[in-house]
Amino acid sequence: MTQTPSGPHTLEVALGSRSYPIHIGPGLLNEPGVLAPWLAGQQAMIVTNETVAPLYLERCRAALPEGVEVRELVLPDGEATKNLEHVSRIWDALLEAGFNRRCTLVALGGGVVGDMVGFAAACYQRGVAFIQVPTTLLAQVDSSVGGKTGINHPLGKNMVGAFWQPRGVLIDTDTLDTLPPRELSAGLAEVIKYGLIRDADFLAWLERSLPALRELEPDALAGAIQRSCALKAEIVAEDETEQGVRALLNLGHTFGHAIEAHQGYGDWLHGEAVGAGMLMAAELSARLGWLSVRDVERLRVILRLAGLPLDAPAGMGVDDFLSRMRLDKKNVDSRLRLVLLRAMGDACVYDATPEALLVELLEQFPRG
Amino acid sequence: MTQTPSGPHTLEVALGSRSYPIHIGPGLLNEPGVLAPWLAGQQAMIVTNETVAPLYLERCRAALPEGVEVRELVLPDGEATKNLEHVSRIWDALLEAGFNRRCTLVALGGGVVGDMVGFAAACYQRGVAFIQVPTTLLAQVDSSVGGKTGINHPLGKNMVGAFWQPRGVLIDTDTLDTLPPRELSAGLAEVIKYGLIRDADFLAWLERSLPALRELEPDALAGAIQRSCALKAEIVAEDETEQGVRALLNLGHTFGHAIEAHQGYGDWLHGEAVGAGMLMAAELSARLGWLSVRDVERLRVILRLAGLPLDAPAGMGVDDFLSRMRLDKKNVDSRLRLVLLRAMGDACVYDATPEALLVELLEQFPRG
Repeated sequence: MTQTPSGPHTLEVALGSRSYPIHIGPGLLNEPGVLAPWLAGQQAMIVTNETVAPLYLERCRAALPEGVEVRELVLPDGEATKNLEHVSRIWDALLEAGFNRRCTLVALGGGVVGDMVGFAAACYQRGVAFIQVPTTLLAQVDSSVGGKTGINHPLGKNMVGAFWQPRGVLIDTDTLDTLPPRELSAGLAEVIKYGLIRDADFLAWLERSLPALRELEPDALAGAIQRSCALKAEIVAEDETEQGVRALLNLGHTFGHAIEAHQGYGDWLHGEAVGAGMLMAAELSARLGWLSVRDVERLRVILRLAGLPLDAPAGMGVDDFLSRMRLDKKNVDSRLRLVLLRAMGDACVYDATPEALLVELLEQFPRG
Repeated sequence: MTQTPSGPHTLEVALGSRSYPIHIGPGLLNEPGVLAPWLAGQQAMIVTNETVAPLYLERCRAALPEGVEVRELVLPDGEATKNLEHVSRIWDALLEAGFNRRCTLVALGGGVVGDMVGFAAACYQRGVAFIQVPTTLLAQVDSSVGGKTGINHPLGKNMVGAFWQPRGVLIDTDTLDTLPPRELSAGLAEVIKYGLIRDADFLAWLERSLPALRELEPDALAGAIQRSCALKAEIVAEDETEQGVRALLNLGHTFGHAIEAHQGYGDWLHGEAVGAGMLMAAELSARLGWLSVRDVERLRVILRLAGLPLDAPAGMGVDDFLSRMRLDKKNVDSRLRLVLLRAMGDACVYDATPEALLVELLEQFPRG
């Protein structure tokens, strides 16, 4: 893959009558009324969090056309808020404002805001329109695209939710200027994931570009976001409700969700847990004879370059992993299904991992 | 319409790949394993309430095939339980049981159980299978068919929910033997609704058959349930997500929901509120010059024969109605949309009711 210019770029998620565009570019949020084409009616509510509101709420408001009734709701920040209580606050606000079925929700923020607002939109009056305005790298390359919405449950991540597609996704790459480095690294985990599961060339490009990405070099960022979104859009168009290929996007997530749930949501960032989880999946793939030791070492270097943790949480035991992994949404009846790597750039869903091999991995994988 | 035999009868809700059958007949729940064809996997949870559990839970369990992992959850009874707290209890139970995406929920009970369990199924792990086993007349003729699921909010009825179709509907007409007369009358309100909105012949048949229906005469009941379900299935197949004709099924509901919300859910039964609401809609239609005074009087007699209240709640003011009606899901932007009657057996959605005429009706309609 060669470098892509950092100017505006539009992709489409092709889902028939529910198709929608992803606009990617610097400064997109500065164009007054830019969100107008995606509004369903004359009522809009911007939902964001306490961290993002002071930075981008005013700009987001200006991105809505004049004459529309606009409300704002600012929630607390963090993965621990992605629960029923906070979705319920969105519903309360919509009803108190008298918003009807033709209203539009605007999710301004990271993956937590996007997932929660999308779920609120999916269920308010049995479904209203919503727009994604992701402001973290993780949300821009992954969670804002594809219509997976939902909330966490103390017993498992994203256990309650809906498939509900946005009307459009607006990615203003300038918003990454204010992103803390740790969150940037977390987002890079999902970018690396796309290379690992189906694009070896992109993985090689990333390997070279990670230093530039961590320096927020505009062309590198634009290239990473565009390629990630294109791969995600392609997979979602093929398999919207995860009957097949979409499950590959869960590489590292079965291990990662177990880490997040065990640590209490918000201690590890989602991307950090996915990073460690991808390394665990790669290790397991090597134990199955699919990857070489050198492949695993290469991934370890890539993750280190991205600034991600390489160890599982200190004190997290084998049973802590197993009990949470058994609740994974991919499982069929009582068989554990994992996304593993046949090669670097080629993932598969595998449901015949010998339990002993998994236990061995969980025993031996380093804790930090 | 002539009388229909009370033996088993099957209808289909035609929705492409999501089509499903409605089986109607006496004693259907006594057939061991009868629910087997509708199971998605090897895990099933029957959700019911404290009133229905002692009567039908054992039979429902036997209607599931042997070898399936079956759990049971018994919730309290009543419209006041149709809220997020109780849906959440269903999700908790599913997660505690370790149920995965291929599990099946069975809703055993009336409209409250059916709406709540359907919504729980729509959102658990972003959507799992469910089966409707309605045990009240109202659920059998209306709420169990068509995939409208959801819960109430203090500010409005069914304000949070999803369109989510069951895998099948099993209507054992024998369950009506244990139904309290007041609930039977409430169910008759929805039966009368079908006649009013699009089947004048059925309305005339009902007019003659109401005494037999209230006596639980099997042929009359079978006829009323089959015709109601057929009309509902026809409308849902035409317009699953209420973009058009399906809105007609809301005849009486805009007034009715206002009554229910104002009284606190559960004081008036849903069907009772719909009955009074239909009379209000008919009165308003007469004031618009569409119905004759004689038509309205005829409806009053029909509702009285069904054992339904003819007055609005004592002490419910004009503003109590208007403020709740403005939140109705049918409204577009700030225009109030009502289902009214052009003639007996011919309903329409109307959004140009002069406010003064509506206020006059609300002032003059009798309170009980």
